[in-house]
Amino acid sequence: MSLTESKPDAAAKAASLSARSLAVLSVAARNDALTAMHDALLANKEPILAANARDMARATSASESGHLSQAVLKRLDLSRPGKYDDMLQGILDVRGLDDPVGKCDLRTLLDDGLELERVSCPIGVLLIIFEARPEVIANIAALAIKSGNAAILKGGKESSDSFETIAKVIGSALEKTQVPNAAIQLVKTRDVIDQLLGLDQYIDLVIPRGGNELVRYVKEHTKIPVLGHADGLCSVYLHRDADKDTAVRVVVDSKCDYPAACNAAETLLVHEAALTTILPAVAEALFAKGVSLRCDEKSMEALKKALSPTSAALVQGSTDKDYDTEFLDLIMAVKTVPGTTVDSTDDASLDMAVAHINTHGSKHTDCIVTSSDESAEKFMSSIDAAGVYWNASTRFADGMRYGFGTEVGISTNKIHSRGPVGLEGLTIYKYKLRGHGQTAGEYGEGSGKRRYKHQNLAI
Amino acid sequence: MSLTESKPDAAAKAASLSARSLAVLSVAARNDALTAMHDALLANKEPILAANARDMARATSASESGHLSQAVLKRLDLSRPGKYDDMLQGILDVRGLDDPVGKCDLRTLLDDGLELERVSCPIGVLLIIFEARPEVIANIAALAIKSGNAAILKGGKESSDSFETIAKVIGSALEKTQVPNAAIQLVKTRDVIDQLLGLDQYIDLVIPRGGNELVRYVKEHTKIPVLGHADGLCSVYLHRDADKDTAVRVVVDSKCDYPAACNAAETLLVHEAALTTILPAVAEALFAKGVSLRCDEKSMEALKKALSPTSAALVQGSTDKDYDTEFLDLIMAVKTVPGTTVDSTDDASLDMAVAHINTHGSKHTDCIVTSSDESAEKFMSSIDAAGVYWNASTRFADGMRYGFGTEVGISTNKIHSRGPVGLEGLTIYKYKLRGHGQTAGEYGEGSGKRRYKHQNLAI
Repeated sequence: MSLTESKPDAAAKAASLSARSLAVLSVAARNDALTAMHDALLANKEPILAANARDMARATSASESGHLSQAVLKRLDLSRPGKYDDMLQGILDVRGLDDPVGKCDLRTLLDDGLELERVSCPIGVLLIIFEARPEVIANIAALAIKSGNAAILKGGKESSDSFETIAKVIGSALEKTQVPNAAIQLVKTRDVIDQLLGLDQYIDLVIPRGGNELVRYVKEHTKIPVLGHADGLCSVYLHRDADKDTAVRVVVDSKCDYPAACNAAETLLVHEAALTTILPAVAEALFAKGVSLRCDEKSMEALKKALSPTSAALVQGSTDKDYDTEFLDLIMAVKTVPGTTVDSTDDASLDMAVAHINTHGSKHTDCIVTSSDESAEKFMSSIDAAGVYWNASTRFADGMRYGFGTEVGISTNKIHSRGPVGLEGLTIYKYKLRGHGQTAGEYGEGSGKRRYKHQNLAI
Repeated sequence: MSLTESKPDAAAKAASLSARSLAVLSVAARNDALTAMHDALLANKEPILAANARDMARATSASESGHLSQAVLKRLDLSRPGKYDDMLQGILDVRGLDDPVGKCDLRTLLDDGLELERVSCPIGVLLIIFEARPEVIANIAALAIKSGNAAILKGGKESSDSFETIAKVIGSALEKTQVPNAAIQLVKTRDVIDQLLGLDQYIDLVIPRGGNELVRYVKEHTKIPVLGHADGLCSVYLHRDADKDTAVRVVVDSKCDYPAACNAAETLLVHEAALTTILPAVAEALFAKGVSLRCDEKSMEALKKALSPTSAALVQGSTDKDYDTEFLDLIMAVKTVPGTTVDSTDDASLDMAVAHINTHGSKHTDCIVTSSDESAEKFMSSIDAAGVYWNASTRFADGMRYGFGTEVGISTNKIHSRGPVGLEGLTIYKYKLRGHGQTAGEYGEGSGKRRYKHQNLAI
C-alpha cells in the first residue's frame, strides 16, 4: 500500500500492474493480509481516533458555521459507540467469507478432450471515491483484497486526517504480507478526481461512496463503468388487501429507520380502497415519528376526514415534483392509486402502481404490502428494480442484511457480461424478499433485538 | 414491431413501456413469437432475397468504384449457400434454449418467514446498431424476445432494403403474437444514432455490431453501457515445451480460419527456446496459407537461418506498432519472449509473455501452447481476458461454439452487478478452454467435419 501525494496516473498504472499478481494470490495469502490489517487497526486504535478527533473538531466548527451538515458530522465520527469495533469485525467477516475467486459456474464438454469452464476472477482495478465515512476505507480495502482486486482509494477532505492515519496503518500492515505494495493505492491529493476519472486504460470500475451529487458528478465525468446509484427513490405500495398492522410496520420502518439512507422509502402509494381502511393508521404512526406527509387530493381528503383535527392539520398537499424527490428526511409523498372496492385482486390498480414506480422510482428497492400471493408475485415480476419486496421494509436492502458480510455499495446498474454473450448475458438478477411485516429496526446486536439466521436453503 | 421513420425518442419510450409487459410474458408466449418469426421468414424467403439482391447490386458497384470493401460485400450477401437456412435455424436454436428469465441462483432464509432469492430477469431495452449483416436482425430479435428484452434495431445503409423487408416480415409475424407491438422497434432513418445514444432514460444497453470504428464511436458518444468490444487483439504464446504439431495447428487456425474475425490471432509470442525448434514449422505452415510475418530481430534471425531462401525472403521486420495492431488480415506480428533452454517450466518467461499480453492485448481471447499443466494453469489465471485457452484455437471464442445457441456479440466488459454488491459482485468470470490442439475449422455441418457435443458436465 502506498500513500500517493500526487500523480494519479502513476498510482493507477502501478495498481494496474500489481493487480495481475494480486489476482493469482492464494486465498490463504489474501486472508493473511486481512488478518494483518485487522490486527494493525486494533493496535492503533488510539492514534486513529486521535486523528479522527482532529477531523471532527474541524467538521464541528464547519457545521456550526453552517458549512457542513449534521449528517456528515455523524458519518465522520469514528468514536461513536461500537463503530470502531464494527469496522474491525467487518474485516474478520470478510475474511471468513468463501473465496469468490475461481468459482466455476459453467463447464461444458465441447468435444472429447475439449472442455469449457466459466470461472470467477477479479475485475482488476477499482477506484473508490469516498466522502466522509472513514471506516469505509478499511471495509473496502478488505473487500478489494479478498476479491483479488487492486484498489485506488480517494478520500474526502472532511476525513483527511483519519484517512491518512488509517491508510498508514493499513499500509505498513500490508507491507509484511504477500499483497503487492501497489495493490492498494491511497490518493489524498485534492483536485485529482477528474484526472483519475480519465484513466480508463488502468481503472476498470469506479465506486463512488457518497451523496448523489458525488455519484452524478462521477457518472458525468468518466467513461469507466460506475457501480452504484445516484438516487434511492424507494416506494411502498399498499394494495387494497394489505394487512393494516403489516402496513404500519413496513411503512414506518421503511421511512423512519434511517431516513438519510438510500433504501429509505420516499413515496407511499395507496390503493383507493385502502385510503379509509389502512392509510389513517399508517399516517398516525408516521406522525408519531415526526414525518410530514405530502398528499394528493384524494388521500388528503380521506385523511382529513379520518384523523383527529390535530393530526389532520399535519397533512400537506403534494406537487408533482414530490413524487420524483428523494427527500432523505422525515418527509413522505403519498399518492392514491385508483381502484375498485369489488372483491378481486384488482390487477388494473396493481398495474397503475407498477407503472408509477417504474416511471418515477430509481430501480433501487420497492415494496408491496398485500395479503395476496398472486398480487405480490405480479408486483415482484413487473417492477424493474434491484430489490422487489413483499411485506418487508425497504431497509433490508443492504449487503450485511442479505448475508454478504459487507458491501461496496448498492448498484442499480443492469449489465454484467463478458465473453460471448448469449441469452444468459441478456438477463440480470433481482432480489426478491418475501416477509411477514418484518422491520429492519428489529434486527441488531443489542438485547431484545432479533438476529439474522443467514441460512442457505436448497434452490 | 414497428418500423419507425423518425423520432427515435418516441421509439425508445414506446420500447421502454412495452418492455414491462414483455418481461412478464410466459416463456411459451415468447417461444410462440419465435416460431411465428421463423415461419414468416421461411415463407418470405423470396422477397427478402430479392431485397438483398438490390442491396448487393448497389454495394457491388460501390465496391467496384472502391467505396466499399470486399469484406462488407461478403457479409451483406444473404444468398450465400446456407446463410439463409442458418438464420432460420438460429431462431429455432434460440427457441430451444432454456428460459433465461426467472432462474433463481441464490436463496437465503434471513429469518423465519423472511426469505431472500436472487432471480434472473430481463435488462429492459437494448439498442442494437448494425452495419452490414442483414441476418443479424433475425438473430438479435430472437435473442431479445426470448430473454424478455425490448430492442431497438438500427440498421446500416448498406443493408437498408434487406433490413426493411426483413423488418416488415418479422413485424407482421409478431403482430399475431403476445409480444407487444412496440417491443421490437426498427429505426431506419439515417443520422439518428446520436439521438438514440442520448436516450439513457429509456435505453439500458447498447450493442454495436460492426467494425471497431463503429464501436469506438458508440463508446465515445453515450452514457448508456455498451456491450461489446472495439478490438480483438488476440495472441498465441508458444511456450518452450510446446508440442510442434499442436503449435502449427493452433496458430494456423487462429490466424487463418477467418482473419477478419475479432477472435483471429494477431500476435504470435515465441519462447526463445522455441525459435529454432517450433517456429520454423509454424512459419512454413503460415506462409503456405499466404500469411505475412512481421518479426522482431531474434525471431527474424532464427527464421532466416532455418528456412529455405524462398521462405526466408518472406520474413519481414516488425515495428512496435505491429504489436498493438489488429490486422484483421493475413498478417501476424511475431515477438520473442526471452528465456532459457534449461529444463524447467521457465516461469520468468511465462511472466513476460503474460505481461506482454496484458499490456498489448484487448482482453478478448488469448492462448498458450504448452505441454505443461502448471504453465497452462498459470497462464490462464494470470491473463486478464474474457477467454484464456490452452492448446486450442482462439477462434473458439463464439457463442455458438460455446453451446449458447447464438450470441449478441462478444463482450470485453468487466462489470455485472446490481443490488447490494458484496464479494461476488467484485468478480467477473472468464472462460477457460482446455484442448489438445483442436481447430475451429475442423467443426461444422459439412461432411468430414466434427460436430460439437455440447454436453453438460458435473461442476
